[in-house]
Amino acid sequence: MKVAFLGPEGTYTHQAAEKYFESYQPVFCSTIRESLESADVSVIPFENSLGGGVGEAIDLLKEKDTAISGEVKIEIDHVLASNEKTRDIEKVVSHPQALSQCRTVIEKNGWEEVESSSTAKAAQEIGGGEAAICSRLAAELNELDIIETDIQDESSNTTRFMVVGGEETEGEKTSLILEPGEDRPGLLHSMLSCFSDHEINLSYIQSRPTKNGLGDYYFYVEAETESGSEDYQSAVRCVEKHADVKTLGSYRRCR
Amino acid sequence: MKVAFLGPEGTYTHQAAEKYFESYQPVFCSTIRESLESADVSVIPFENSLGGGVGEAIDLLKEKDTAISGEVKIEIDHVLASNEKTRDIEKVVSHPQALSQCRTVIEKNGWEEVESSSTAKAAQEIGGGEAAICSRLAAELNELDIIETDIQDESSNTTRFMVVGGEETEGEKTSLILEPGEDRPGLLHSMLSCFSDHEINLSYIQSRPTKNGLGDYYFYVEAETESGSEDYQSAVRCVEKHADVKTLGSYRRCR
Repeated sequence: MKVAFLGPEGTYTHQAAEKYFESYQPVFCSTIRESLESADVSVIPFENSLGGGVGEAIDLLKEKDTAISGEVKIEIDHVLASNEKTRDIEKVVSHPQALSQCRTVIEKNGWEEVESSSTAKAAQEIGGGEAAICSRLAAELNELDIIETDIQDESSNTTRFMVVGGEETEGEKTSLILEPGEDRPGLLHSMLSCFSDHEINLSYIQSRPTKNGLGDYYFYVEAETESGSEDYQSAVRCVEKHADVKTLGSYRRCR
Repeated sequence: MKVAFLGPEGTYTHQAAEKYFESYQPVFCSTIRESLESADVSVIPFENSLGGGVGEAIDLLKEKDTAISGEVKIEIDHVLASNEKTRDIEKVVSHPQALSQCRTVIEKNGWEEVESSSTAKAAQEIGGGEAAICSRLAAELNELDIIETDIQDESSNTTRFMVVGGEETEGEKTSLILEPGEDRPGLLHSMLSCFSDHEINLSYIQSRPTKNGLGDYYFYVEAETESGSEDYQSAVRCVEKHADVKTLGSYRRCR
């Protein structure tokens, strides 16, 4: 089975695919959109404990006619990787976000920062006097020594990925899009009432612009229920009085 | 009065400051954090009709002991600026986001893309065979010819900026942060009930990670009421049963 995701080899999304699938054929892509268009199944970054929701991923799930079939979480543990001795390192190469997450160690050592388009690419590209900030997997794939592990400033840095496409699934979580036709006072409260009246908890809610103008929003919501349950069906009928509803799939929770 | 914001001269944030203040002394900064720390008053980008909320700006308002005193909206109209003749342009230089918003014109002309750290910097830096995608103000400040206006793909591209600091204000909008101590079923619904029970409309809600771990969120909310109103005070007392509340300021709506 072909699975498409952000490459090159050794990205955190690659790690997520390795964790989720026992065997698969990787298709490395350079954007989230390309990931969703290059195979029947894809893995895309969706939410990070420091940065929040990945807006582009939510917008693409709203746009595309495809379903979420699973989720997977990865601890983001950046390592410092190089074949240089520590004292010979002058520059660190990584994605801007990873560089900003490792401010303390970089400043302590006075390293110059060099930006690359992904942490995995940094591991491929470093030359003399350089070290990469990347995943353990990327360091190993590029036969780099791991000089230091867990070098990020904040210890808790987790990313949640969505598995999209493949066989339809049913599980204790259901994702949906709520797109109100028009804004009016108390609208969001009315929509949320539909879920709480049926004792359905929402574990995540994210507002996103519809791109029709400032202040015009739709909502991505995760409900703690199966899409086949009677409660879910009643809640959706209730919400449909206020908004267009698109169920994005029902799947098992990743613990 | 000194006002700090993202520079260099000719950024869209500079345009926002020009629109809001009759006279002021600009302090050009390179990050949003620096903007908030370099003067008593600052102007920061807050929400875009295509990209959504600026997470970093919301997080900084939660962190800092300062107040919102106003808002200002700017239509983002990208221009193509250069002193070259159109037929001699081979490369376009701009911020990655602006490049991605002008996909159609770039592909039609087959221009090579060069990334810069801001649209205004692109206007300063272009050389032979190059054009900048930037604001009209940046083109004029750098004495570049405006070859084409409104070159973005989507016609509706508006950014809202917040004016932070200065004299305390009171107006028909009030911004606040709601940070729940613990997650429980229906929590967001209970918090929103406090506002709808007092007939206060919420015009904007954005969830942001607390950075304490995946799934742990706080909420930034804009309420359509004055912070001095009795209804607002009652609503806050109600919400305080569920969450820590921080009022970020009350200010006049920008139409």
